[in-house]
Amino acid sequence: MRSLPRRVLVTTVPFGTIDPTPLQLLKAAKIECVINPLGRKLKASEVGDMIRDFPVIIAGTEIISAEAMESAAGLKAICRVGIGLDGIDLMAARRLGVSLSYTPNGPSAAVSELTIGHMISLLRGVAEADRGLRAGQWQRVTGRRLGCSVVGVVGVGRIGKRVIRHLQGGFPGVRILANDIKPDAEALAIPGVEWVEKEMIWRDCDVITLHVPLTAQTYGLVGAKEFAAMRPEAVLINTARGGIANEVALADALRSGQIARAAIDVFVEEPYVGELIEFDRALLTCHMGSMTVDCRVRMEVEATEEAIRFLDGVALANPVPEDEYIIDAGAKAHGLA
Amino acid sequence: MRSLPRRVLVTTVPFGTIDPTPLQLLKAAKIECVINPLGRKLKASEVGDMIRDFPVIIAGTEIISAEAMESAAGLKAICRVGIGLDGIDLMAARRLGVSLSYTPNGPSAAVSELTIGHMISLLRGVAEADRGLRAGQWQRVTGRRLGCSVVGVVGVGRIGKRVIRHLQGGFPGVRILANDIKPDAEALAIPGVEWVEKEMIWRDCDVITLHVPLTAQTYGLVGAKEFAAMRPEAVLINTARGGIANEVALADALRSGQIARAAIDVFVEEPYVGELIEFDRALLTCHMGSMTVDCRVRMEVEATEEAIRFLDGVALANPVPEDEYIIDAGAKAHGLA
Repeated sequence: MRSLPRRVLVTTVPFGTIDPTPLQLLKAAKIECVINPLGRKLKASEVGDMIRDFPVIIAGTEIISAEAMESAAGLKAICRVGIGLDGIDLMAARRLGVSLSYTPNGPSAAVSELTIGHMISLLRGVAEADRGLRAGQWQRVTGRRLGCSVVGVVGVGRIGKRVIRHLQGGFPGVRILANDIKPDAEALAIPGVEWVEKEMIWRDCDVITLHVPLTAQTYGLVGAKEFAAMRPEAVLINTARGGIANEVALADALRSGQIARAAIDVFVEEPYVGELIEFDRALLTCHMGSMTVDCRVRMEVEATEEAIRFLDGVALANPVPEDEYIIDAGAKAHGLA
Repeated sequence: MRSLPRRVLVTTVPFGTIDPTPLQLLKAAKIECVINPLGRKLKASEVGDMIRDFPVIIAGTEIISAEAMESAAGLKAICRVGIGLDGIDLMAARRLGVSLSYTPNGPSAAVSELTIGHMISLLRGVAEADRGLRAGQWQRVTGRRLGCSVVGVVGVGRIGKRVIRHLQGGFPGVRILANDIKPDAEALAIPGVEWVEKEMIWRDCDVITLHVPLTAQTYGLVGAKEFAAMRPEAVLINTARGGIANEVALADALRSGQIARAAIDVFVEEPYVGELIEFDRALLTCHMGSMTVDCRVRMEVEATEEAIRFLDGVALANPVPEDEYIIDAGAKAHGLA
């Protein structure tokens, strides 16, 4: 390990701009740092060439394929800024001996807050009113109150738990229905949560929010059948990963009035170009869940510290856990990822 | 009292449409009910003619002037749906022997929730991202987190207190600075609130939210001088009454970057037509603070029950308190209202 060149490539941009700490840490550790010169998210086809000469990458959400890793013989570790691992071919990384770390706690606080903001905005028709006013129309939307709504939380991991905490602490009166394939002990111990089948969430909730990772099981989790089961006043929020709610089925559901509104922060292909922009009752943001100053800085610092640990021959603090490899293998079996 | 004709005019529209309870209550009390046939907010000049033949009005936010009340000899009571009394000439009502009631608790829950939603939307640049996407631009805004912000609450009455409760319960980590001309004992007893001068709120807060009534003292409370004192990353929310933040000064502050963003739900003249619609960093809604199903129904029912009490010769449950008359007299002295 100690013989690795002390060089790091940062593919995620911007990096070190809000707070220079990550760059200072690398400098102090005498590690040369090259930042993605294209200044934007890399396409899958661009990754291989760029990573070739680096033992360690500090990575974003770009696709890092088996081919890209195979072409980079010196690659020994990928330190992901963030939590979603759907961009990385985990099984190939294991086969090629590439170590993986991530920053599982970084984005949670920012994503859960944005989710609460989206809930209120949707329940009150805020975006429609704003757009209407700019077009010369004064449309007073009669909405619903979060504190007297039934909220369905699908996925009660780090982010789902925080969403529940915001709701229970800040909006007493709210009723929470939850579902998770495999809720952990901490989730099950939250008082006041009703654990139900997903079908009951689709059917009974005023607000439905998704906080599951993208896997073979969750891709298309909310599709035509699920939308058909929802209440016409229901609102849906996806701040998790694109494709967990099917975009075409969502457009159909908004068009036919099967649901009232939706806030979508994540898309199958980003930047998003598609028909959802035509819907007045959609609120669309640009994969901004983790985009707050504090969370970005924390994630960048944590990923940087992992890169330094790795080059120093120290064990990673947050290696990608075994579960994620199993999920990834499952995704491959289903032709995903 | 008992000899009054059992007739009520409802000027606020819509009324009884979300939930027919108010109409049913009137019917059960054998009171004839006429709803404003124009189907929109009345202009000041239209009020006199319409109210002429009614002993009791269930009123909205329209201007009810001394002249209008003078021309309605049989008018004995105005039961306001809502809390703001800036539309009614209170001193004239007193002089003419017109009783006044309002529904002070009705709107609080809905207004405070919308305020929290606006805080998160502003801190994260949600409206800009949505508008950008619809124009073909993918702009990932790096925002700030409510849970690590300093929030200034100006006015700690019914709504300000609820805003603080949402913040402290739902977003631990938030720091709250508060100001009120005359905070009540309940406000002063809230733990964790720092009571400061308004100047410190303008200067030190990331988020500033207004929850004062419109009076001679609060009209133009936030003007050019106050905006100049704010931090460039500050966001301002006005869900109270139009004019408390000066609209022209706000446009200047957004233009020059004195503040980052603003959410405005209330305007000096409504429907609003003005330059704020030109600002990407403004989030504009249509006086929708109290517009939730539960709050509208509650306010309509409470105002209706007051009208019935009055016609039955029973004391009003929520007569407008003496304080409000004093404030109104002050406003007149300053040429307002």
